[in-house]
Amino acid sequence: MSILVVGSVAFDALQTPFGKIDRCIGGSATYFSVAASFFSPVDLVAVVGDDFTEQDASVFKGRNINLDGLQKVPGERTFFWSGEYGYDLNVAKTRDTQLNVFAGFKPKLNERQRSADVLFLANIDPDLQMDVLKQTKRPRLVALDTMNYWITSKKDALAKIFSEVDLIIINEAEVRQFMGDSNLVQAARAILSLGAKTLVIKRGEYGVIMITKDSIFAAPAYPLENVFDPTGAGDTFAGGLLGYLASRREITDRELRRAIVFGSVLASFTVEKFSLDRLREISLREIQERYQDFRALTHFDDAE
Amino acid sequence: MSILVVGSVAFDALQTPFGKIDRCIGGSATYFSVAASFFSPVDLVAVVGDDFTEQDASVFKGRNINLDGLQKVPGERTFFWSGEYGYDLNVAKTRDTQLNVFAGFKPKLNERQRSADVLFLANIDPDLQMDVLKQTKRPRLVALDTMNYWITSKKDALAKIFSEVDLIIINEAEVRQFMGDSNLVQAARAILSLGAKTLVIKRGEYGVIMITKDSIFAAPAYPLENVFDPTGAGDTFAGGLLGYLASRREITDRELRRAIVFGSVLASFTVEKFSLDRLREISLREIQERYQDFRALTHFDDAE
Repeated sequence: MSILVVGSVAFDALQTPFGKIDRCIGGSATYFSVAASFFSPVDLVAVVGDDFTEQDASVFKGRNINLDGLQKVPGERTFFWSGEYGYDLNVAKTRDTQLNVFAGFKPKLNERQRSADVLFLANIDPDLQMDVLKQTKRPRLVALDTMNYWITSKKDALAKIFSEVDLIIINEAEVRQFMGDSNLVQAARAILSLGAKTLVIKRGEYGVIMITKDSIFAAPAYPLENVFDPTGAGDTFAGGLLGYLASRREITDRELRRAIVFGSVLASFTVEKFSLDRLREISLREIQERYQDFRALTHFDDAE
Repeated sequence: MSILVVGSVAFDALQTPFGKIDRCIGGSATYFSVAASFFSPVDLVAVVGDDFTEQDASVFKGRNINLDGLQKVPGERTFFWSGEYGYDLNVAKTRDTQLNVFAGFKPKLNERQRSADVLFLANIDPDLQMDVLKQTKRPRLVALDTMNYWITSKKDALAKIFSEVDLIIINEAEVRQFMGDSNLVQAARAILSLGAKTLVIKRGEYGVIMITKDSIFAAPAYPLENVFDPTGAGDTFAGGLLGYLASRREITDRELRRAIVFGSVLASFTVEKFSLDRLREISLREIQERYQDFRALTHFDDAE
C-alpha cells in the first residue's frame, strides 16, 4: 500500500560535539521517505533548487521511492538549515535558516498521489497541510507532524487540521504548550477531543508515548552508547511508524505499538552518524534484530 | 526474608500547585519501610525527637515493620524539611532544612539487624553508610541511594561505598555528574566498573532504566492524570523494589525487572496524595492490578 509524504528536502550544515559537516542532505521528507521505504512504497512530494544534484538524489536510489513529485525549480536554491548541538543533544540551536525555493512551495498532487493509501503531512504550514489533504481522495490513514512555531503563529489553523487527521505526531513540550496544561495525559486527551484518534508524543531521549481513547503505550528510546547527531530522528521515527502501518491490512492498537517500535528502531540508527549516513547502510535484517533488542529492553514477566 | 533500612524519619512541610500542608510525616526510611512492608518484613533504623508522637508512629502500625531501631531522643526535635513544587513537579525547591536530632545520627545495630538478609542504605552521609555496612554480617543484597550533595562534598567516600554494594539507586543527572560524562550508558558502565552489579537510574516522570553488565531494562513511569505531590516517590520506589527482591529466593535479571515494576507501581500511588496518605490506604490487590496495567502500558508483540 502506498504512502505519500509532503515535506522538505534540504541541505543541512551541522555541528555536534563529535564533528562538523558543512553540507549534507537533510529535510523532513528525506528522512521520512528513506525510513518508510523499508516497509512500503513511498511517493515523495517536495521542492528543490537546481543546486540539488544527481549525486544528492542518490539518497533515494535503489529504494521504493517515487520521485515524480520532487519538483526542481531552475534558478532557485534548495532549503538550507544550519544547526548546532551541545552535549545536551536534545536541544538543537538554529544558526541559520534559508527557506529559498521552499518559501514558494505549493504542492499540486497528481492522480496517483491523490489516491495514496496513507498520507504524512510533515512539519509545514498547517494551511498548506490542509490544502494538500483536500487534494487527496481521503486516504485510509492521515498523519501529521508540527512544531512550536505553528502553535504560536497559527494555532487556529493547527486546531483545524488536528480535527481532520487520524494521527498526530508531536513533541511533549508542544502538547503542553498547545493546551496550556502541564499534565501530559490531560493535555493529550484534550487534543484528542478535537478529533484525531491517536496522539504519538515524542520525548527525545526518553522515547515515545502513544495515547488513544482506550489505551496508553510507552516505549523508551534505545539506549545508545554513542549518539552522534540527532538531526532527523523525529522524521525517521515518523517514517518507520507510518511505513510499517501502510504495509498492514488493519490499523489496530497491536499494529500501532509495533509501528512505534519500528519507528524507534529506525530513529536509533539515524542518530548514530551524520545526516542519513547510517540509515543508508542498514538492512531490513538489522532493523528486525534491533526490534528484538527493544523487546529485551522493555519486557518483563507476569508476577507469580 | 528480612530487610533492614537505615535512613531518616522526618516531618515535612509541603507546597504544590494543588495544595499545602504544614506538617506531615516524611523521611526516606518512612516511605521505604511502608512500601517494602507490602512484600517483606522490615527492620527500621532511624532517629526521631520527642516531638514524634504515637499518632505519628501510627504510619507503621499494622504493618510488618519492626521499630526496635527507631530511637527517640529526649529533648531533641525530629528532622524537618520544607519544600515547594511548581507546575514542573520534577523539581523540588527546598525552603528549609533543620537536621535537628538527625545531625547526631550514628546507628548501632542490634544482633537481629546485623543479620538482615537485605540492607538498604538510604540517602545519608556515605561514611555513615559504610559504618552501617561494616556492622552487618554481609547481607545477601546491599543497596544504597545517594544525592548530588554527596557527589560534590564526599566523592571519594561515595566511590568507596559504591564499590562495596550490589545495587545503586541514583538519579540520572547524578550518574552524569559523578562520571562527568553526558552519555548515560557510558557513565553508568563506568560506575559499574567500580564494583556494583546493578545500577538503577531514576528519571522522574520518565521512569527508570536498569543497567547491568549483561542487560538493560527500561520502564516508564505510570502516566497519571493527577500527580499531586512527588515527595517520597524515589524512596517508595526503592522500598517496592527491595521489598519485592527480599521476598524472592534468587535475584535474577527476571526478578530485578519485576522488582523495578513493583517499585514503579508503589511510587505511582505515593504521588497521588500528600505524604504517605495514598500509600496507607492501598492494598496488595491494587498493587497487583497496577502491575498488570504496567504490562499493558509497555508490552508489544513480536513482529510477524
